[in-house]
Amino acid sequence: MSDVVELLAQVLPREALVTDPDRMESYRYDRAMFCPAGTPLAVVLARETAHVQAAVKIAAEAGVPVVPQGARSGLSGAANALDGCIVISLEKMDKVLAIEPIDRYVVTQPGVYNAVLSRAVAEHGLFYPPDPSSWEFCSIGGNLSTNSGGLCCVKYGVTTDYVLGLEVVLADGRVLRTGRKTVKGVAGYDLAKLIVGSEGTLGIITEATLALRPQAAQPRTMAALFDSGPAAGEAILEIIRSGVSLSLLEIMDQTTIRAVNAYKRMDLPEEAAAMLIAQSDAGGEAGAADVAMVAKLCRDNGAIECIEADDPAEGELLLEARRAALIALDELGTTMIDDVAVPRSRLAEFIGLCEDIARDLDITIGVLGHAGDGNMHPTVVFDQTDPAQAERAQQAFDKVMEVGLQLGGTITGEHGVGVLKRTWLAEEIGPVALDVHRAIKQALDPKNILNPGKIVAE
Amino acid sequence: MSDVVELLAQVLPREALVTDPDRMESYRYDRAMFCPAGTPLAVVLARETAHVQAAVKIAAEAGVPVVPQGARSGLSGAANALDGCIVISLEKMDKVLAIEPIDRYVVTQPGVYNAVLSRAVAEHGLFYPPDPSSWEFCSIGGNLSTNSGGLCCVKYGVTTDYVLGLEVVLADGRVLRTGRKTVKGVAGYDLAKLIVGSEGTLGIITEATLALRPQAAQPRTMAALFDSGPAAGEAILEIIRSGVSLSLLEIMDQTTIRAVNAYKRMDLPEEAAAMLIAQSDAGGEAGAADVAMVAKLCRDNGAIECIEADDPAEGELLLEARRAALIALDELGTTMIDDVAVPRSRLAEFIGLCEDIARDLDITIGVLGHAGDGNMHPTVVFDQTDPAQAERAQQAFDKVMEVGLQLGGTITGEHGVGVLKRTWLAEEIGPVALDVHRAIKQALDPKNILNPGKIVAE
Repeated sequence: MSDVVELLAQVLPREALVTDPDRMESYRYDRAMFCPAGTPLAVVLARETAHVQAAVKIAAEAGVPVVPQGARSGLSGAANALDGCIVISLEKMDKVLAIEPIDRYVVTQPGVYNAVLSRAVAEHGLFYPPDPSSWEFCSIGGNLSTNSGGLCCVKYGVTTDYVLGLEVVLADGRVLRTGRKTVKGVAGYDLAKLIVGSEGTLGIITEATLALRPQAAQPRTMAALFDSGPAAGEAILEIIRSGVSLSLLEIMDQTTIRAVNAYKRMDLPEEAAAMLIAQSDAGGEAGAADVAMVAKLCRDNGAIECIEADDPAEGELLLEARRAALIALDELGTTMIDDVAVPRSRLAEFIGLCEDIARDLDITIGVLGHAGDGNMHPTVVFDQTDPAQAERAQQAFDKVMEVGLQLGGTITGEHGVGVLKRTWLAEEIGPVALDVHRAIKQALDPKNILNPGKIVAE
Repeated sequence: MSDVVELLAQVLPREALVTDPDRMESYRYDRAMFCPAGTPLAVVLARETAHVQAAVKIAAEAGVPVVPQGARSGLSGAANALDGCIVISLEKMDKVLAIEPIDRYVVTQPGVYNAVLSRAVAEHGLFYPPDPSSWEFCSIGGNLSTNSGGLCCVKYGVTTDYVLGLEVVLADGRVLRTGRKTVKGVAGYDLAKLIVGSEGTLGIITEATLALRPQAAQPRTMAALFDSGPAAGEAILEIIRSGVSLSLLEIMDQTTIRAVNAYKRMDLPEEAAAMLIAQSDAGGEAGAADVAMVAKLCRDNGAIECIEADDPAEGELLLEARRAALIALDELGTTMIDDVAVPRSRLAEFIGLCEDIARDLDITIGVLGHAGDGNMHPTVVFDQTDPAQAERAQQAFDKVMEVGLQLGGTITGEHGVGVLKRTWLAEEIGPVALDVHRAIKQALDPKNILNPGKIVAE
């Protein structure tokens, strides 16, 4: 037993320390493809903030890296273990601590799953909007660390927009409480929003106070099918130009439609080049009018079919096609999911360029994503047993980011950088911003023990 | 002429450099009361980013402090000059550079006034929500540096919620471009939101890309008068509990109502203890229904009178009472405006405690503010020529913050810390957060030349 493990065993309860290699195996990886993962010395299953503090202090003293983990549902390798690290898992800190209906906030531990939190606040007539597709198996701590988005961002924004306050264990084991319980507040630097999205490199989130909204109305849903990608792109522009406030606006291309048809045995027309799905949660007649307007704009822009859901169940069915998309593409082969966001005005062009990449590299790319905010998930599908194809897949994955940047976009709209996109981050933000990243990292973690090498390569 | 001034004269065009003491006088202060202000060596009226860079480089080389200034409308002394500093005024960088209707963003220089920007984007059917009361004479750069709020925050949030990207001159004169032009993006640390609200202590904002919304509908307005403060407080709670989405919910107490009556010759009932003003911009019947519901809730909670505006002009008249409040209080004596935000559930209690403070210290406090988000501006009114009263006024000002903190609130909801509230900031955030502030400041400004001593005392 190494010294570090011995020290951990001295201060942690038995159930909070895992050193068995078989049990540790599942704590090595998140869900990112092709990211290296090391083997930890130990996994700490923290039950309380004091466990996190104790582990970080021991790590700091020993100069051992610490990798914080939530539900390991991330897609960029940010939670992957490093050789000889201490993994600090927050999955056992899974309690919703307080829900305040008048002040509209929830205080939660980081290990609570997004869906659990959402349902808990819904019982009080409240709404926590950020809704990553993985909401049933991703944790709030992970959402905070990657600044997750989701389907309803187009109307409600992303995780950082809901963060009021955080409790954070710093690199020296001290506890930082930052932020507030009030709607507004400008007392000092916005440390909470700095920690959000920092992927565990600046501190470990052990508690969060999150803003809530009143529950939205029952959504109205419609879908439109197009026989050409550009027609769908033009319809999206018209929808945005109209100013209609949608709570969801998603797109799937032909590859994705066909994959979903095969997987879910849905009856979507195989010849459709693109499908839009839109929702309005304005409620009552306003919601119906929003959806009718979107349907009209789709028809005016060449939709071959518009389906307006008669009731929430039918709406849910339409949405299921979108929700099943990634799993359906997974059935076709190994997938690498990109996460490029472009200015909305360039969306149609971006989709066209993804098609070009697929053709040029003779590889399958299913293009789907959040059309309403320009955040697309072109998903490269390939046969991993074919090295040449795997090579082309990697090229396609990179090429998608390259054209995203050329269109004024970003390499990651909501999945984060982790280890997967470190070199691309440098490309996107440039040397000055990279220096500022390093300066801030150095200021908050001078020994470089918190998730080292994530976001910014060492 | 000092060496520093000579160096500035060598690199800056003549019109960009002011050294005449009379002209420099007006660049010494913002609008904060009782904050010390020094005398600058020189005022740089930057016309372009390169001027800011040049001045910062000279300052860094000479170890001379730099104080960035917008429109000097701040209320915390953040823009006050320091002895021997270089003031860098951004007021001449006053151009709106681009408005993108589809992508819904505006690129602007920092010296543009909030109202000018708002009107410019309105011409494109777009809406920049943050609307500080000073919007006609405050600049976007100042709004960003203090993370300004305003009247419609209750529905639309504050400045930071609209910041997509920034150009920032760093302490060594390099230019940082951070953020994005896309709706979503998580590539690296959120440096933009760290700079926002940092009051010029981490960098000087020379350009901003701000998110816009589609123009809101014409607002519907109502006002309600109450014969007791607690009744008004209860009505506010019921309004919030109802989940109605208001674009404005303001409160004024009796002192403020009477001051407005005297100043504007309005016919508000002098015996009223409190007045609420509410707006909904939901549009059409939805807006009318919102306002009717608020009126009903006010009546159910003891309102003695409800005025529903028949048209926008009448609504504007009601709002004018609120807009005139601070000027009206100014007519009664010297004013010190507090800026405490409390959890909304504690608002009625907070207002009651402010009344207690006024009574106990035998001083006038006009309580007004943004009831919808719990951000109140209790305004101490006193006779500056009476030293004993001035002393009690200062005590009252501090006591208001103290009770705000006791109720789980913050010492500043939207005005910032500057020099006015530095000791209170330390009280609010505690030693660990203060250390993190210092570490970040040290990382980005190791020579401590950017607005030193603001936010965090040296």
